[in-house]
Amino acid sequence: MTNKIAVFRRARFNAAHRLYCKDWSFEKNDEVFGKCNNPSFHGHNYSLEVKLIGNVDPETGFLINLNELKDILKEEVEDRFDHKNLNLDCEEFAQLNPTVENITIVIYNLLRKRLDENKYEIVVRLYETENNYAEYPIL
Amino acid sequence: MTNKIAVFRRARFNAAHRLYCKDWSFEKNDEVFGKCNNPSFHGHNYSLEVKLIGNVDPETGFLINLNELKDILKEEVEDRFDHKNLNLDCEEFAQLNPTVENITIVIYNLLRKRLDENKYEIVVRLYETENNYAEYPIL
Amino acid sequence: MTNKIAVFRRARFNAAHRLYCKDWSFEKNDEVFGKCNNPSFHGHNYSLEVKLIGNVDPETGFLINLNELKDILKEEVEDRFDHKNLNLDCEEFAQLNPTVENITIVIYNLLRKRLDENKYEIVVRLYETENNYAEYPIL
Amino acid sequence: MTNKIAVFRRARFNAAHRLYCKDWSFEKNDEVFGKCNNPSFHGHNYSLEVKLIGNVDPETGFLINLNELKDILKEEVEDRFDHKNLNLDCEEFAQLNPTVENITIVIYNLLRKRLDENKYEIVVRLYETENNYAEYPIL
Amino acid sequence: MTNKIAVFRRARFNAAHRLYCKDWSFEKNDEVFGKCNNPSFHGHNYSLEVKLIGNVDPETGFLINLNELKDILKEEVEDRFDHKNLNLDCEEFAQLNPTVENITIVIYNLLRKRLDENKYEIVVRLYETENNYAEYPIL
Amino acid sequence: MTNKIAVFRRARFNAAHRLYCKDWSFEKNDEVFGKCNNPSFHGHNYSLEVKLIGNVDPETGFLINLNELKDILKEEVEDRFDHKNLNLDCEEFAQLNPTVENITIVIYNLLRKRLDENKYEIVVRLYETENNYAEYPIL
Repeated sequence: MTNKIAVFRRARFNAAHRLYCKDWSFEKNDEVFGKCNNPSFHGHNYSLEVKLIGNVDPETGFLINLNELKDILKEEVEDRFDHKNLNLDCEEFAQLNPTVENITIVIYNLLRKRLDENKYEIVVRLYETENNYAEYPIL
Repeated sequence: MTNKIAVFRRARFNAAHRLYCKDWSFEKNDEVFGKCNNPSFHGHNYSLEVKLIGNVDPETGFLINLNELKDILKEEVEDRFDHKNLNLDCEEFAQLNPTVENITIVIYNLLRKRLDENKYEIVVRLYETENNYAEYPIL
Repeated sequence: MTNKIAVFRRARFNAAHRLYCKDWSFEKNDEVFGKCNNPSFHGHNYSLEVKLIGNVDPETGFLINLNELKDILKEEVEDRFDHKNLNLDCEEFAQLNPTVENITIVIYNLLRKRLDENKYEIVVRLYETENNYAEYPIL
Repeated sequence: MTNKIAVFRRARFNAAHRLYCKDWSFEKNDEVFGKCNNPSFHGHNYSLEVKLIGNVDPETGFLINLNELKDILKEEVEDRFDHKNLNLDCEEFAQLNPTVENITIVIYNLLRKRLDENKYEIVVRLYETENNYAEYPIL
Repeated sequence: MTNKIAVFRRARFNAAHRLYCKDWSFEKNDEVFGKCNNPSFHGHNYSLEVKLIGNVDPETGFLINLNELKDILKEEVEDRFDHKNLNLDCEEFAQLNPTVENITIVIYNLLRKRLDENKYEIVVRLYETENNYAEYPIL
Repeated sequence: MTNKIAVFRRARFNAAHRLYCKDWSFEKNDEVFGKCNNPSFHGHNYSLEVKLIGNVDPETGFLINLNELKDILKEEVEDRFDHKNLNLDCEEFAQLNPTVENITIVIYNLLRKRLDENKYEIVVRLYETENNYAEYPIL
């Protein structure tokens, strides 16, 4: 047990995507990805939960000023992915299948660059639906 | 006050769409529909709530057998719209902008044909996001 | 449009039940009620939403003192049905199939006796699951 | 049954308040309002659901442009009440007990002035907690 | 920190149960288990959250094909426990008190047999009510 | 992996608070805490999730009797903080800024004194809003 604490903040974005491997036949993609392989896309309301771990500032009582974190989530996640087609509009997924696993890792890497590694560990959880979600990394 | 009761059943579908008027310029669509006018589409997890109003069968204690209603919702709504692009894949929206209002009315009309008018009034509520939803008709 | 307002209060109870008609064969019950006809029972977390309609007291700003309503819900609903077998333990369902429709009507009648008809209209909504619920009466 | 449709939009605000009648003794307020009468205040996360009823524009498929409604809710509700003490900071409650009933009616009146009566009926639902909420008016 | 990721999937079942120790008197069971000791049973809507931890397949972007996981959850959990009396119908609880803790461990063991130990760690969280749940194991 | 299990229990309280540092100017507090620095306070519906980790009693199948835990949460958390002004009414925050981080740590310390350290590890998660919450400690 450490003295550390975690703070969580949610963000949301609504996007279209298609799951498929470009090197595979339509039949093989259909077999593996089923209706997620629809060539004209489908979409989701993604709900993101970001967890930061670190030490509370004894003066303010904050781990992080949540307004600062809110702005980072807006810039790195909402402005980038909201009301977008992940396959067509987002360079992050030009060569990467936009599964919930891969979107989670992409968001982790985007946030990691913006938040001081010496101050914060980060865990990202992404809900694709209420029944289906991913979390990265495993600390 | 009548002797009638209402029973509700939920269904869900995940779909892509774009909001725009075909006769308008991109600029005018952009002004009215904003980021919902993204030409490469975005998407949502739609959550549907169907309300049937009628009389309880005194023998079974059912207004309707919910397995029957579940099957109708699967055929008319989930099989038709889940993992689809509403603009490209669904003839219902070939000439109709797939706003949450219009999708709600379309679903009402699909269900109205399948449920006996002498037995059931119907109200359809459709959630596009947790903050934004529509209901039709107003009884 | 009237000057009236509605106030809602929730309550909860967890109960076992079986759906079947005593006069029917097991085969007919199985056909109509499916797995809900399990003779050793199954159960639910029921969530109740009571809506009272009436006039706000201009002095207190209350339609009803919610502590009073909370006590009535505890006595009439929670103490009566929580952690009970509706078929075996509750006289209300000795001759009545405990469908979500019938439980809703029973609760309405129990509350109607306890709340002044000149002051309050009542609507009861009962969730058997998050996907399946009933409402009574239809005003 | 009319041709009308309803569209709903949510907003949120977090506020402090105290329930009491200025003309009453502390003892009488304590008897009626219990711990809600704490003179140093308590608070809630209020969640607002606004329902507009009217006709869909056949060209856009909108009852109302939700960006317009979102701005009105921000100006009339969130900017006015969020992170405020309803009793001390808000003139609407200078002479009015901020019960969930009264806050609901106040918000209805604020929104009624901003939305065209010829185009939209309005119903306001306000959640004080997940178990306790009000709705006004009763159409 | 590892390179691993977690994926979560939900399932649901509705069941009856009674909590008691067979070797104890009714009085002692009543003292320890209270109204959960009702001999005619009560019930719950159980909500299950299964977490798998492992490596993403670089080709598909999947940790596991969720259709495969969905089928396993249907076979091992939903078909086994939904609309059942855990005490009377389920051999897993013939000698084991069906507390939320024990049901969680039983489900973990059922799933552990079906999912490759070299590929996936598993954590099971089971909600008996929204206020009361268990998680196993602690990694 | 150990043989241990976790059990979770929720509790709720509604309170007023103000975020500020007593040694700072109003301007500096305004810059850091924004509208949370309102001198007449604002408030929240706090939702608490307590996680206990330990071994299941093989006879009862309980990690802890949840009625016992429920009573402890009522005494240590609900009776202490519900319908209170955290800054004015609660000695725990006389010298401590009531951020969600600090309230979480205070609750952890209150519960730690009441639950046997040899039997239970404790983790406390506190939701200030649905979008903003904290967890302590990090095991």
